[in-house]
Amino acid sequence: MKKIENPQNVTNAPIIILVRPQLDENMGMVARAMMNCALYELRLVSPRDNHLSEKAVSASSGAQVILENAKIYETLSDAIADCHFVYATTARPRDMTKPVYAPHDAVPLVNTAVGRNQKVAFLFGAERTGLENSELICANGIIEIPLNPLHSSLNLSQAVLLVGYEWYKSVCSVANTRYETGDSEIAEKQEVDAFLKRLETELGLRGYFRFPDKVERMQHNLRNIFTRMPLGHSEVKTLHGVLNDLIRPLTNKK
Amino acid sequence: MKKIENPQNVTNAPIIILVRPQLDENMGMVARAMMNCALYELRLVSPRDNHLSEKAVSASSGAQVILENAKIYETLSDAIADCHFVYATTARPRDMTKPVYAPHDAVPLVNTAVGRNQKVAFLFGAERTGLENSELICANGIIEIPLNPLHSSLNLSQAVLLVGYEWYKSVCSVANTRYETGDSEIAEKQEVDAFLKRLETELGLRGYFRFPDKVERMQHNLRNIFTRMPLGHSEVKTLHGVLNDLIRPLTNKK
Repeated sequence: MKKIENPQNVTNAPIIILVRPQLDENMGMVARAMMNCALYELRLVSPRDNHLSEKAVSASSGAQVILENAKIYETLSDAIADCHFVYATTARPRDMTKPVYAPHDAVPLVNTAVGRNQKVAFLFGAERTGLENSELICANGIIEIPLNPLHSSLNLSQAVLLVGYEWYKSVCSVANTRYETGDSEIAEKQEVDAFLKRLETELGLRGYFRFPDKVERMQHNLRNIFTRMPLGHSEVKTLHGVLNDLIRPLTNKK
Repeated sequence: MKKIENPQNVTNAPIIILVRPQLDENMGMVARAMMNCALYELRLVSPRDNHLSEKAVSASSGAQVILENAKIYETLSDAIADCHFVYATTARPRDMTKPVYAPHDAVPLVNTAVGRNQKVAFLFGAERTGLENSELICANGIIEIPLNPLHSSLNLSQAVLLVGYEWYKSVCSVANTRYETGDSEIAEKQEVDAFLKRLETELGLRGYFRFPDKVERMQHNLRNIFTRMPLGHSEVKTLHGVLNDLIRPLTNKK
């Protein structure tokens, strides 16, 4: 699956289906979590509260468009009718034979389907009761979020967030790990080396390397401090400035 | 790092530090998210609300112990004094030279330190303002959670949850992806094969394989339906029962 610059360009991104959700506030928070993860299609199976209430909209924190476009269904069977794959999230899979996936392990299956223009839905049950056995039956597989067994209960929107996040990571194009250097570029090695040579020279003039058999080790230790992190251009300049001032004799002693 | 059966056995699991958190409810929700991820040490730097208020405890949903054990500090510098590594979460890293990690990329670094009994802290800023530049300075690196650039604002507890979840996944011992078979074990291939042979025999008696040149393909198609998913013992029995009844002549026609 192609990595995306603009997450709204994913056609057939997975659908989130809430089955018998109770609280409008939770539906709003689910919409927010969905938008965080570039999931835009929400379906609600016989919701109790109004998903467009003031509370819901406020909890959605700017993801109102997802609530407005949400489709309401009377039965789960109607809600999944046009889907090709359905994955049901549940804290504890019940007595049935099904594959159980951690969210990150389900993502490749989801993306294979999405890449073939097939629709994939993630089911989430009601706040307290979760999905019933009769509702799990329709699923190709179960998604189980690995959490502390001593405290695995999640808010509905947090379950949506964790599943959505695993999917989003797989499609987002952001280079995640990198060096941030602000306005300055990373300095070339020769700039750093020039600073270190100058530092060594100035230190040498002041007797820092006074034990000849330790000079090399002292140089290594000193260089290691400044070479293991990338320095920016402007940081090397800062270090030169620091050195300039440190070697200047104090003229105005107080 | 050893995988854990009981997540409370992780000594020196990462510490969560909230810097100037405002709402008691959010502190409670952070405690809940921490417990979900088996993180038990919370530090608060000059919190506005009382972290033990009724609202906070209620929002913690059973993670009250984390709130009760939380330590309060006046300054960030005090809060991180005994830590060896500090990672600061921020939506957008400012103008400074720092490595920026996605949460999952920071986890190996964290676990290396934890494995050496070094303390690692994750910093989270105030709800609206996040961490200030002067607070980011103390960090070894920045954690940036990859999210939809069109809507990347997260609730404080959700940021803690996503970072904590990435860590928890790396230490939990649960076999994530597996086949759940309820009370029944997966059937051996010979059981499935015996059922399929019986099915073919009964179908053969009824003229199902009427075109000799298509027999093999028809058999393959039929077998493929039942062999690509693992069947449980009891499911094979169910299928035998279904077959028993299907081949029985209707005696009491209505």
